[in-house]
Amino acid sequence: MPSLLQGAMEDLIKVFYSYSGKEGDKYKLNKMELKNMLQEELSLKEGSYDSAEVEKVMSSLDENQDGEVDFQEFVVLVAALTMACNEFFIDFIKKQGSK
Amino acid sequence: MPSLLQGAMEDLIKVFYSYSGKEGDKYKLNKMELKNMLQEELSLKEGSYDSAEVEKVMSSLDENQDGEVDFQEFVVLVAALTMACNEFFIDFIKKQGSK
Repeated sequence: MPSLLQGAMEDLIKVFYSYSGKEGDKYKLNKMELKNMLQEELSLKEGSYDSAEVEKVMSSLDENQDGEVDFQEFVVLVAALTMACNEFFIDFIKKQGSK
Repeated sequence: MPSLLQGAMEDLIKVFYSYSGKEGDKYKLNKMELKNMLQEELSLKEGSYDSAEVEKVMSSLDENQDGEVDFQEFVVLVAALTMACNEFFIDFIKKQGSK
């Protein structure tokens, strides 16, 4: 039985390949796959952003500028999002504590 | 219902605080908390490494050299471990494919 941490790491790998494997290079997310992942995994509603914004996310992630997001670039995104969630979580706790 | 990615991010935060909150600064892992996490979350058997090795892991993670591992430093560890698992996973698949 994997630990909570091992399970979370496994899930990150599963999530990546469930989108990267759909078309083209199955080890990388192309723009459509990245857009699907942002929508389905991070609840970014269709229409709440346009393709120029997906383009912006893609180019900010795409460190090696090959037009796709590989697993390492994906993990950098997840790390940044998790740290942002953590900051929000700490602020929330500290505000609760000061009531 | 959180997505698989959201759930994994939540679990990373849960794991960190389930160890960091035990003693001292509840937002950081001290050496004992880091050791417990390595043992319990990454199945590193007691006796399979000595405290000098925990010290090495600690100092390699502890970017700001405050003697403790904060959430950002923890996420860097998780990212590196997940990327290593991913490399192993890709090699495994490629070897399967070439049989």
